Amino acid sequence: MIVPIELSNTKNITYDIIIDALPQLTFNTKVAVITNPTVAGYHLQTLLAHIKAPQLEVITVPDGEEYKTLETVETILNELFEHKFDRKSLLIAFGGGVIGDMTGFTASLYQRGIDFIQIPTTLLSQVDASVGGKTGVNNQYGKNLIGAFYQPKAVYIDPSFLKTLPAREFAAGVAEIVKMAVMFDKDYFEFLTTADLTEEKVLKETIRRSVELKAWVVNQDEKEAGIRAVLNYGHTFGHVVENETCYTTYLHGEAVAIGMVMANALAVELGLLSESEAERIKALLEKASLPTRYKIKDVDDFYEHFFLDKKSANNSIKFILPQGIGGHKIVSDVDETVVKNVLKKFGDEA
Amino acid sequence: MIVPIELSNTKNITYDIIIDALPQLTFNTKVAVITNPTVAGYHLQTLLAHIKAPQLEVITVPDGEEYKTLETVETILNELFEHKFDRKSLLIAFGGGVIGDMTGFTASLYQRGIDFIQIPTTLLSQVDASVGGKTGVNNQYGKNLIGAFYQPKAVYIDPSFLKTLPAREFAAGVAEIVKMAVMFDKDYFEFLTTADLTEEKVLKETIRRSVELKAWVVNQDEKEAGIRAVLNYGHTFGHVVENETCYTTYLHGEAVAIGMVMANALAVELGLLSESEAERIKALLEKASLPTRYKIKDVDDFYEHFFLDKKSANNSIKFILPQGIGGHKIVSDVDETVVKNVLKKFGDEA
Repeated sequence: MIVPIELSNTKNITYDIIIDALPQLTFNTKVAVITNPTVAGYHLQTLLAHIKAPQLEVITVPDGEEYKTLETVETILNELFEHKFDRKSLLIAFGGGVIGDMTGFTASLYQRGIDFIQIPTTLLSQVDASVGGKTGVNNQYGKNLIGAFYQPKAVYIDPSFLKTLPAREFAAGVAEIVKMAVMFDKDYFEFLTTADLTEEKVLKETIRRSVELKAWVVNQDEKEAGIRAVLNYGHTFGHVVENETCYTTYLHGEAVAIGMVMANALAVELGLLSESEAERIKALLEKASLPTRYKIKDVDDFYEHFFLDKKSANNSIKFILPQGIGGHKIVSDVDETVVKNVLKKFGDEA
Repeated sequence: MIVPIELSNTKNITYDIIIDALPQLTFNTKVAVITNPTVAGYHLQTLLAHIKAPQLEVITVPDGEEYKTLETVETILNELFEHKFDRKSLLIAFGGGVIGDMTGFTASLYQRGIDFIQIPTTLLSQVDASVGGKTGVNNQYGKNLIGAFYQPKAVYIDPSFLKTLPAREFAAGVAEIVKMAVMFDKDYFEFLTTADLTEEKVLKETIRRSVELKAWVVNQDEKEAGIRAVLNYGHTFGHVVENETCYTTYLHGEAVAIGMVMANALAVELGLLSESEAERIKALLEKASLPTRYKIKDVDDFYEHFFLDKKSANNSIKFILPQGIGGHKIVSDVDETVVKNVLKKFGDEA
């Protein structure tokens, strides 16, 4: 199945997301596969058996968010120069979100931009990171603070790569799927409550609907001026959770799951969501073995952390909240005491 | 006078180039001026007297092409993070091409893109570098190999900044002006043969016509897929001259002047240009005190250097040649011996 992407802000940018067993890919240019040792160990041979190119290089970078730096990007750039890659050469991102973000960013920089395609190997990157054109790296000031908006030429999503994915990472991907459903599509949410993701057909359908929703959002708003902000549901709270736990306790998707539960509590407080709807969302997250509890030690400190987020341009916090299941509302004028009262509930629970 | 830029490839991108005394500029966001000690020494006070902003930072980077690196860009990025610049903040490039290229590149990277404006202070950057959206840095593999296409929000060209520009650098700017005239506009060429650029009115008119021509080219071809290649007239030969002399003997514009004379010799050989037209172009370059002679020591070696240029994607050299004065032709199938015979003439002359 194919999900076509057409960016309306920028003319001439269209590409396809192909959700299927990886097809045979033939190129008439130099190609570099950017990957990490873990993914390469499991799947590189499979990938290489599917690619034909006059020159094919494999560039391996260390696995992990801590290597998502300008330094690693420079290493990749230098390898491309060593191999005399030119303006027609192509990069293939083969891995999760870190590999995708760095490969896209490298492609955007190399001689002011060469083509790249994505072959995401985690559920999170299949449903989320591979759609939208956000590329970049972290630095000592925070995550994704340096980067570019740069679109791939194609995205190949082959669910069979997920067979080797650790269960926790699979669940982390489900968190972003639930996010899309709660924000945009009640039918999809209902589908998910009964879906058995261990069945390949159901998994494919799940990925398709999530990608379609994300594509629909990005098509409207490539550069995050409006509706794309809704994709940050669960992230405002989740980022603080990640930050407080030094990015070591939770996977990003796990922190987002906790963040959604917190956002829901605020939505209930503001009358946007019923208690029972909040419970249903929580139940769906727990069905996917995602964490939904987090003990806030210091409510004031937690609150202060909101303002370190780069999205808060002018010192007012934008909360992305569900308006019922399948709807969303951006609320930016919530009283500090209301927010803190909600946060306190998470301070009390064990 | 205002030259409007509208990029046809990319929707929604329009900005103005204002050629006039620098107006009063008022911003309601954080602003950082990126400059170097030389320009700051001469003109920073003047600039600051024209800018109002709630927070204004001046970031000074070392003067010179050798500092046009990813490392310098990272230093600027870090300073912006230290000053807590956000997505609405603005950068001002205040200097020549190096400052413009690095500032634009930094702006493209900071939180995936913030606004920047250009206030170019050299003739070369006023007529050339400030129009077109090419940003980037050099590395050990060559010039401008890492970068982005990124457009400013406005360009303010104030010719009075040129009063402190060294004569050689002024002349280097004239080389790019002559290039535009020879490639695209015979009237403009005739105007230049009698123009006295020490007169401010004439200088302003000269800049306007050059900027208009460049804008016309870039509007058609933002990402250098077609006609924009014509702007490389003189550069294919000029780059080799720069390379052979380790970028220390000639300013870029001076090497381009020599490169144009060489390209003209090839054009004469191919019947595209008459001897007398070639002489007229040479005379105009010499009127501007530009070098037009260069002794090629090893013709074979010089020829080999063409293939190191990043623009030669598929190992065939594209020569950008004048077709009469005011016309151009891209020729890619010139016989090696014909080229070498032309190069030999430069080997013989002193």
